[in-house]
Amino acid sequence: MTETDPQTIAEAAADAMFEKDNASRALGMAIEEVRPGYARLTMTVREDMVNGHAICHGGLIFTLADSAFAFGCNSYNKATVASGCEIAFVAPAKLGDRLTAECRERVLRGRSGVYDIDVTNQDGETIAFFRGKSRQIKGEIVPGLTAVG
Amino acid sequence: MTETDPQTIAEAAADAMFEKDNASRALGMAIEEVRPGYARLTMTVREDMVNGHAICHGGLIFTLADSAFAFGCNSYNKATVASGCEIAFVAPAKLGDRLTAECRERVLRGRSGVYDIDVTNQDGETIAFFRGKSRQIKGEIVPGLTAVG
Amino acid sequence: MTETDPQTIAEAAADAMFEKDNASRALGMAIEEVRPGYARLTMTVREDMVNGHAICHGGLIFTLADSAFAFGCNSYNKATVASGCEIAFVAPAKLGDRLTAECRERVLRGRSGVYDIDVTNQDGETIAFFRGKSRQIKGEIVPGLTAVG
Amino acid sequence: MTETDPQTIAEAAADAMFEKDNASRALGMAIEEVRPGYARLTMTVREDMVNGHAICHGGLIFTLADSAFAFGCNSYNKATVASGCEIAFVAPAKLGDRLTAECRERVLRGRSGVYDIDVTNQDGETIAFFRGKSRQIKGEIVPGLTAVG
Repeated sequence: MTETDPQTIAEAAADAMFEKDNASRALGMAIEEVRPGYARLTMTVREDMVNGHAICHGGLIFTLADSAFAFGCNSYNKATVASGCEIAFVAPAKLGDRLTAECRERVLRGRSGVYDIDVTNQDGETIAFFRGKSRQIKGEIVPGLTAVG
Repeated sequence: MTETDPQTIAEAAADAMFEKDNASRALGMAIEEVRPGYARLTMTVREDMVNGHAICHGGLIFTLADSAFAFGCNSYNKATVASGCEIAFVAPAKLGDRLTAECRERVLRGRSGVYDIDVTNQDGETIAFFRGKSRQIKGEIVPGLTAVG
Repeated sequence: MTETDPQTIAEAAADAMFEKDNASRALGMAIEEVRPGYARLTMTVREDMVNGHAICHGGLIFTLADSAFAFGCNSYNKATVASGCEIAFVAPAKLGDRLTAECRERVLRGRSGVYDIDVTNQDGETIAFFRGKSRQIKGEIVPGLTAVG
Repeated sequence: MTETDPQTIAEAAADAMFEKDNASRALGMAIEEVRPGYARLTMTVREDMVNGHAICHGGLIFTLADSAFAFGCNSYNKATVASGCEIAFVAPAKLGDRLTAECRERVLRGRSGVYDIDVTNQDGETIAFFRGKSRQIKGEIVPGLTAVG
C-alpha cells in the first residue's frame, strides 16, 4: 500500500481510467484538469458527431459530460458508479465547437454523491447542464493507493 | 403539399433524419421500426465503445436511447426538440451486446410530449430507463408532407 | 420471526407506514391497494392545496406520487429510501379533482429499484409522470416479518 | 401600463402570487427575499409534516423547493410554468428544522429557463438539490407592470 497526497491520487486514478476508456478517447476527449471531486474535459465537435444541420448529437454532449462526471467522482480512487443522470440541453453545439465539461462536487455524504457538470463552448456559452448522482462500490481504481492521514 | 397516411409520414421522416444523422450511423445504429409516436433502434457494443473492463460507456447507451427518442417524437413530421432527458442505468452493457432502444409516447399534449425509452440487451434484460421531454418547434422534417384528414 | 405470504407482508408494511405518516394523512391521502412492488393512493384537491386560479400546487401532486412510491418500494418490508425523483407535469389538477397515483415497479436489482408513478384525475387524464429511484437500507418496516420460502 | 424597475416588479409579482398561494401559506412558508431570477423561502418542519421517526416527508421538501422555483422564475412578471423538476434528497430534515430554499437562475434563453434550488437546514447542511426547467407562457402576474427601458 502506497500513501500519497489527494492530488497525486486524483491524477493517478484519472490516468488509469482514461487509458482504458476507449469511448472517451475515440471521441477525441482530453482531460484538462483533475482534482479531488473535480474534473474538466474538452471535446471538439467533429463531422461524425453532427446531423445535416451541423448540430452535434445530444447524446455525445451527454457522453462528454458523463465522462467528466466519471473522472470527478472517481478522483478519490474509490470505485464509483452513476446511479442516475439528468441533462438539460440549453443551446446547440455546432460542428467545430470546442466543448468543455466541468464537473464539480456538490455533496459527498457516505458513499453517495451529487455532481454538477456544466458544458460550455469556446465562447463560454452554456450548452447543457448535467446532474449526476454517484455511489461508491467496492474496489479501487489504482489498487493499493490511499490518502495520507 | 402531399397528403398521405401517418405511417408513411413516420417512415419518411425517419429516413430523412437518419440520412443526415452522422452520429447515429457512425455508432452503427439501425432503425428496426418506426410508427407514429414510436421508434425502435438497435446498436451493437463495439470495441471503441467500452472501457478496460469491456463495459459500454454510459454516454453511448444514452446516445442510443436519445436517438430512439428523436425518431419517436419527430414521427409526425413536425420538428421536435428535447427539452430534458433523464436516465437510470440499471445493468451494464458488455462488449458484443446487441442493445435495443424502444421509444414509446406517454403523452403528447399541444406541443409538449413525454416519451419513455427502455434499453434492453439481446437477452431481454433491462440496461437503462430513459425519459425524454419534447417540444415541437416550427418547421417540418420532410417539407410539405401532411397527414390526410 | 413470523413467516407469511408476500401480500400479507405488503399490507402490514403499508399499514405500519401509513399510521406514522402524518403528512400523507394530513393531506387526506388514502391507500386503495398495495401489493408487492405496487401501490395505488388517492387524494382530493382541497382549498388549502390550490392557488388563486384553483390549480393545485405542483409540490402536493409530487407529494402524492412520492407517497405512492414509498408504499410501493417498501412493500417487501425492507426499509427503502428514495435516492432521486423526477417529475413531469402534464396537465393541471383542479380544486375538487380526485387524483390517483399508481406506483409500478420497473426493476428491482439487488438493493436498487426504479419505479414509475403515474398521477391521473377522476376522468383518467394524466396529470403527472413521476419516476423514482430507490435503495434498500438496513432494517425492516415491521420487525421480524419475513416471506415464506 | 406602469413602468418601473426590475426589483419593484419582482416584489410585486411575488406578493401577488403569495397572496393567492394557499398551499405555500398553509405550510407556513415565508418569502425572505426575491430579486429578478432569485427567491429565498423558509419553512419550519411541523408535526403534521413528519413520519413516526420525526423525519419530514420528502414531498414537502420538494414543495418548498418548488415554491422557491415558482417565485424565482416568475420574478420578471411574465407567467411561467414548470416543465420538469428533479430532486436529489441528500440528508433528512427533522421535526423543528428551519429549512431554507434558495432559487438561483442558471440560464434564461428565450422563453426557457433552468433554475437550481438548494434546500438547507438551520445549520447550513444541504437537505436536497432541486433542478427546475421553466417555460414562459402568455400573460403577466401583475397585469400592466413592465420594466423600464
